[in-house]
Amino acid sequence: MNSPFISDVPAAEAHAAWREARAAAGCPARVEAVRVPVGAAVGRVTAEPVWARRSSPAFDSSGMDGIAVRAADTVGASETAPVVVKDFEVVDTGDPLPPGYDAVVMREHVHHTPEGAELHTAVPPYQHVRSIGEDISAAELLLPEGHRLRPVDVAASAAAGVTELAVRRAPIVVIIPTGDEIRPVGTELEPGEIADTNSVMLAAQAREVGCDARVTAIVADDPAAITAAVGTAAREADLVLLIAGSSAGRDDYTARVVAEAGTVAVHGVAVRPGHPVVLGTVTEEPATPILGVPGYPVSAALTFDIFAAPLLAELEGAAPRERPSTMARLARKLPSVVGMDDWVRVRLGRVQDHVVATPLPRGAGVLTSLVRADGLLVVPAGVEGHHAGTEVRVELLRGLAEIDRTIVAIGSHDLVLDLAASALRAADPLVTLASSNVGSLGGLVALRDGLCHLAGSHLLDPATGEYTLPYVQRLLGDDAAVIRLVHRDQGLLVAPGNPLGLKDIDDLARPGVRYVNRQRGAGTRALLDHELGRRGLDPAAIPGYAREEHTHLAVAAAIAAGRADTGLGILAAARAFGLDFVPVAQEPYDLVLRAEDVSHELLAPLWTLLADPGFRARVEELGGYSCAQTGERIR
Amino acid sequence: MNSPFISDVPAAEAHAAWREARAAAGCPARVEAVRVPVGAAVGRVTAEPVWARRSSPAFDSSGMDGIAVRAADTVGASETAPVVVKDFEVVDTGDPLPPGYDAVVMREHVHHTPEGAELHTAVPPYQHVRSIGEDISAAELLLPEGHRLRPVDVAASAAAGVTELAVRRAPIVVIIPTGDEIRPVGTELEPGEIADTNSVMLAAQAREVGCDARVTAIVADDPAAITAAVGTAAREADLVLLIAGSSAGRDDYTARVVAEAGTVAVHGVAVRPGHPVVLGTVTEEPATPILGVPGYPVSAALTFDIFAAPLLAELEGAAPRERPSTMARLARKLPSVVGMDDWVRVRLGRVQDHVVATPLPRGAGVLTSLVRADGLLVVPAGVEGHHAGTEVRVELLRGLAEIDRTIVAIGSHDLVLDLAASALRAADPLVTLASSNVGSLGGLVALRDGLCHLAGSHLLDPATGEYTLPYVQRLLGDDAAVIRLVHRDQGLLVAPGNPLGLKDIDDLARPGVRYVNRQRGAGTRALLDHELGRRGLDPAAIPGYAREEHTHLAVAAAIAAGRADTGLGILAAARAFGLDFVPVAQEPYDLVLRAEDVSHELLAPLWTLLADPGFRARVEELGGYSCAQTGERIR
Repeated sequence: MNSPFISDVPAAEAHAAWREARAAAGCPARVEAVRVPVGAAVGRVTAEPVWARRSSPAFDSSGMDGIAVRAADTVGASETAPVVVKDFEVVDTGDPLPPGYDAVVMREHVHHTPEGAELHTAVPPYQHVRSIGEDISAAELLLPEGHRLRPVDVAASAAAGVTELAVRRAPIVVIIPTGDEIRPVGTELEPGEIADTNSVMLAAQAREVGCDARVTAIVADDPAAITAAVGTAAREADLVLLIAGSSAGRDDYTARVVAEAGTVAVHGVAVRPGHPVVLGTVTEEPATPILGVPGYPVSAALTFDIFAAPLLAELEGAAPRERPSTMARLARKLPSVVGMDDWVRVRLGRVQDHVVATPLPRGAGVLTSLVRADGLLVVPAGVEGHHAGTEVRVELLRGLAEIDRTIVAIGSHDLVLDLAASALRAADPLVTLASSNVGSLGGLVALRDGLCHLAGSHLLDPATGEYTLPYVQRLLGDDAAVIRLVHRDQGLLVAPGNPLGLKDIDDLARPGVRYVNRQRGAGTRALLDHELGRRGLDPAAIPGYAREEHTHLAVAAAIAAGRADTGLGILAAARAFGLDFVPVAQEPYDLVLRAEDVSHELLAPLWTLLADPGFRARVEELGGYSCAQTGERIR
Repeated sequence: MNSPFISDVPAAEAHAAWREARAAAGCPARVEAVRVPVGAAVGRVTAEPVWARRSSPAFDSSGMDGIAVRAADTVGASETAPVVVKDFEVVDTGDPLPPGYDAVVMREHVHHTPEGAELHTAVPPYQHVRSIGEDISAAELLLPEGHRLRPVDVAASAAAGVTELAVRRAPIVVIIPTGDEIRPVGTELEPGEIADTNSVMLAAQAREVGCDARVTAIVADDPAAITAAVGTAAREADLVLLIAGSSAGRDDYTARVVAEAGTVAVHGVAVRPGHPVVLGTVTEEPATPILGVPGYPVSAALTFDIFAAPLLAELEGAAPRERPSTMARLARKLPSVVGMDDWVRVRLGRVQDHVVATPLPRGAGVLTSLVRADGLLVVPAGVEGHHAGTEVRVELLRGLAEIDRTIVAIGSHDLVLDLAASALRAADPLVTLASSNVGSLGGLVALRDGLCHLAGSHLLDPATGEYTLPYVQRLLGDDAAVIRLVHRDQGLLVAPGNPLGLKDIDDLARPGVRYVNRQRGAGTRALLDHELGRRGLDPAAIPGYAREEHTHLAVAAAIAAGRADTGLGILAAARAFGLDFVPVAQEPYDLVLRAEDVSHELLAPLWTLLADPGFRARVEELGGYSCAQTGERIR
């Protein structure tokens, strides 16, 4: 992550340096206060304390439906010696207590007679009377300054006679996308062009924290143009976000532009991802803070969380929003670079009464790692990483109740699992099926280690020619069940029209055929090895045998990009990339689980789904699948 | 809580009965799907799965700034035997990998010579190359149906070539306020009238969960008019909220109106507050669910949370939003009615490493109990209550980090604490000063029991004539510090013009003078007792001595309402209610704390504030206060 141009400032120091630079440049400490009607104030932050202008209730009132009486008139009343009260008034809950009365008797306890109201119990003074000011006393402090208003706060303000509130206006965030190759979202892209997804995301993040977000036109990689855009933005903004392309070259433009327009307080923080951030100010009156956002999408999203969100809360004079957290058991070893705060995205699930955290891919460009994340785990700069099984604190991106209802599948990937995930959620929004792709063998090991509920497997045992079951016996012993998900076709994925005319596995040894393989432990690789063995072919004779991809779709992508001529995979992957498909084998794809979990209520919706003819029909429509045994327990 | 007209249906049964009634009436299970541009989809729920339309990156690209090379050309390069590569291309991060090259060397590792690029390390194929589909593979499931879209989700969708998303439209909630005495917020109220704060609150609650909320005009207490309003509302709404006044009589209108317009599934739930809720449907096509909301504001707010919010999430096909929770130690005994789920509002603070929960007033009319609440604690129907010190699960209404920074003050109430609370928050939005009013003695006991950081006290020891210190020694021993907050005037609060011509404590024994007292343990009551003792007056001779209020402001309110002629209190309370004030004594008001806490960083901002001349000036402007010793440690 090092570059000659930027430094590694620890996050806390970066915050402090930016704060100092903003103060020195004269950036406003708070946005202005405005007065708004209470009904429009929810979500805004109080700019002054709110004192009650009147009491609530504003008068002594009845707390029940019944009759208002004088307590003194009821003295001595009992079951055996009822008292008949002649002087009373009928009241409903909330009615003012009529003058001269000091207590209320519930309707149910009154027996009306021609002589008056017959009571069987004496009542003390002020029974069922809501005193003036019981809820709010005039002149009482209702809300302090710096309080973000919730529905109950505005209702209480209105009840206290306050109809307008002084609040901070929404901070204005102006977002400037830059980069010659960046195109607006929705444009048909030419090769080499990139959609401006960061602006859409940052604007949404700013709106989510209550700001007014504005996105400018995309600015070319030209320092003069960027400087001009920054100047215009700073005049209307409370915070300018200047998005670099993903290029470090362009980060340097950002730093240069900011240095010319004002001051660079920090260029480069010891945070991964997010390292090449620029924190500075634009000096022109009124001075404005500016944040140079790295172009990689995960860096952009986290940079907003780490640097923009706290500043925007400060401009409103409020505490920053806070994510809840939980302790979780780390599913695998997590190495980390010393000297950098490492923000790791994790999936979470409750397996055998432990919340288990499985780290997701860590690249700054892998936005899906944030999409699929249930939590964030920060490995601080001073820590080298964590061992598997360590209990770590995780900031939650999803609620724990949802996480508790999540079926965790680790193992081989199949599109049928995706289809099932979506169908389960559609039937019950509380059910999530989260699958991580580590290959069949990795899944069985994860199941053994208590890290998942289900392992998807299609692992061929070369010794027996049998799928999955021999491995299950070896790794999990007797205490495991196996449910058939599907049968599916495996075959050679080839460019459209099959230009090399490949017909079967034998052709892989042909000179000039570039193969792309799956990783060790993948069922598809085991299938290849089995087929090579049957034919007496030496893996070393297959060009590209050592080149590994981790999913069917990645193999298809490599072929579509022309980096390879063929690879073994499923029909659905070929279709996704417009490739042709040469069938080689049909194989069973199974779900492995602990035997006791077969009847776990968490999994019941999945078994119901597998029995549903509509779902089976949709699976077979994908092509290359057979559902003849779907849902059968085969062990 | 019983009434002849309504029942006590347990909450889970009530949910089930309502669901069944909605299904039977043909209420739509989901709101319609609409297609919106990705940028406008944040906060909405997917109505169908989102599959990637293209890969991201869409091409093999450079992961670094540097040069693209053929890995084969670098074989054998080392520190001692560098290799000069002639065939290369300069690339920036994100650039497409030029055809024919298969690896990238970082700029920093290249030494450009006239012969070419000199490399000191061999590079493996695909080093620093981001493969096509590294983030997203075409045809991959990006998001399931039923997923509430966050900023990263829409950015990933856009990156996957999806520019429009099918989402559920925002559910429409129509709110009907009813009641002859209800007036729109902002109206000058006549005696007996009540501001329509519930509509403001419920509309804000509905918007907070992503709905389109509409409030109708206030409808009079007339079943025909209410029926007409319900019919109109049901035609546009996905859910109708019909707010009763606070009267049970009016609740019956609700049930009657709903019964006529459709079906009443439930009238009355075993939930406190919230009991008289009505759950039903309006039958006219298309059938619409209707919720009869009780008029008491806490009941209204909680009814929305318990019954409306889950239904609205279901209409969107999403999981309901979920509050984080924590375990906390109960500060005092919490009795509860068996047979009712009891929703108790609590304040939270971290004292001596325990999160402590202090129950707030439990009345359905006390909206400030929700305003001041940091959490909600449900005592289930089957439980009789909890002992003090029990560890209970609390749903959080504020973040734990904020709670950790909260100074918990329990004891006597003084407006200077309110002023300090607001000033502290204004200076640093992360600092909260939360005070609960239980009187001086109650505060010292709470401090002893580890339930607070500070106890506000002005407790006169009749034996010594000394304030607070004798009690501190008795209750807390040597390990306590005392900081002077203020001196303040205590006096007799009297109606404007002092119609009874009261001059001092002696006058309280005059016939016809109705006194209102403070509760046992309150410093003001100790002062009265002391003054009575000095004069040899018998408390039994003071009419109203037994009538207790819990705050200065409540005493003032009682006098303002004409329920009493006088009471002892502070000048600020008299001013708040436009009363006159007859000074009786000047007393010190002190803050008591554990000695080791004097240097606790949590309290540092408070000591800074007490030393601030601007703050002292504002205190003295309140009237009746002297800051001559403010901030001095007197023990």
